[in-house]
Amino acid sequence: MSDRPPTTAIVIIGDEILSGRTRDANVSFLGERLAARGLPVREVRIIADDTAAIGEAVNALRPRHRYVFTSGGIGPTHDDITAAAMAVAFGVALERNLEAQALLEAHYPPEMRTAARMKMADIPAGASLVDNPVSKAPGFRLDNVFVLAGVPQILQAMFDGIEPSLEGGVPLVSMTVSCDLGEGVVAEGLGAIQAAHPGVAIGSYPYFRPGHYGASLVVRGTDPVLVAAVAAEVSALVRALGGHSAFVDAPAAAPDATA
Amino acid sequence: MSDRPPTTAIVIIGDEILSGRTRDANVSFLGERLAARGLPVREVRIIADDTAAIGEAVNALRPRHRYVFTSGGIGPTHDDITAAAMAVAFGVALERNLEAQALLEAHYPPEMRTAARMKMADIPAGASLVDNPVSKAPGFRLDNVFVLAGVPQILQAMFDGIEPSLEGGVPLVSMTVSCDLGEGVVAEGLGAIQAAHPGVAIGSYPYFRPGHYGASLVVRGTDPVLVAAVAAEVSALVRALGGHSAFVDAPAAAPDATA
Repeated sequence: MSDRPPTTAIVIIGDEILSGRTRDANVSFLGERLAARGLPVREVRIIADDTAAIGEAVNALRPRHRYVFTSGGIGPTHDDITAAAMAVAFGVALERNLEAQALLEAHYPPEMRTAARMKMADIPAGASLVDNPVSKAPGFRLDNVFVLAGVPQILQAMFDGIEPSLEGGVPLVSMTVSCDLGEGVVAEGLGAIQAAHPGVAIGSYPYFRPGHYGASLVVRGTDPVLVAAVAAEVSALVRALGGHSAFVDAPAAAPDATA
Repeated sequence: MSDRPPTTAIVIIGDEILSGRTRDANVSFLGERLAARGLPVREVRIIADDTAAIGEAVNALRPRHRYVFTSGGIGPTHDDITAAAMAVAFGVALERNLEAQALLEAHYPPEMRTAARMKMADIPAGASLVDNPVSKAPGFRLDNVFVLAGVPQILQAMFDGIEPSLEGGVPLVSMTVSCDLGEGVVAEGLGAIQAAHPGVAIGSYPYFRPGHYGASLVVRGTDPVLVAAVAAEVSALVRALGGHSAFVDAPAAAPDATA
């Protein structure tokens, strides 16, 4: 596991995201939590509820990253095909998982144990289960791939459970300098600061609101002292150019998920 | 162009989306607008501000789809590398585009024409420009790839401009039946309705709110009459199972972008 770089990828499975009907909330949640554990997300793919598409995405991403997280498609309806698609992708059988079956039987009285609900106990062979404290039907882990629910509340609860087991790298910290200057004004000075400090990554994100524009200048890195020092340089640049600047956030330690 | 299937893909370029700092808004906008033009989005990739990652994503997607839309990285700062990366991906030169230069010179008085701002006139050879009515710096089109801004207001204004030129397919329409039954209750009947109507795609999206749960059952297809008939069947199923149902939306014609 740990011979793979401490980076991660996400696969969002769901026609409803591609159609624009539903706005994804799982990328921002996982992106923040994983960065804080030193497991920055490097790629996200959003794909359809389609066996071939799921296999292509997962098999492209899992050799490249320490962990891959999928979201969506593990419910009881006909369009929930992620477990079966993962079995195909890994070349293993999809089989009734007795541990998952016991979880569902403890939750649903006999008259509610429809074939559709019990389908949620069909899990690829060799997978270990991921606890679902919200609605019981489990996710699972197969090699370095975590297969999680799409509903944000459930995905978040599942992630809380697996987070302590993740082997992370050095947490990324960031500081944001918000300013009321256009990007074109700060670009040259900002580029010079970036060139002088290869140990951090500086991003510039313009914003436009009615009668108001500016940019958020974000300094990211693994060394909190260096991040703070570079953010101070960025803030000084903004003031030297006649703008106003404010620190939007302070460098925070990674949340202690094992507490 | 039109020998490619009427499907589309999106590439979101930006470290700030991967880090969870910014929640993407462009996928849902483009997904809805493109589906309404019969150009459903089939894949989305979210990648870093990285030349190799941009080239890999764009070159993987452009042979598969009629159009590819990228978002982000065309501003004046050091982290805006999309235009240069696209030139590399297509194997063409990045060169000062005189039309783009004229647009920027009309917008910025001489003392504001910094090297950083004028960098926004460096465009891959052979590209045609995409109008930016918000902040002037243009996007561009290279073969079937549209390179747009990341700021949602600008991306949306750019899309408004190019939409009439897109060669679409048959618009997708959808109807949503919202119900107060769990997915496990409707799953079997819903699967039977799906099996009987291969001309539509039925999706089931559970929701959980405090003290309240249910599912949105979405019927999608290109034939509005069939979509409405199947949605009526779904609604009848919900009521037969003892639940309540409501139509959340009616099938809408695609917006007439040429009006």
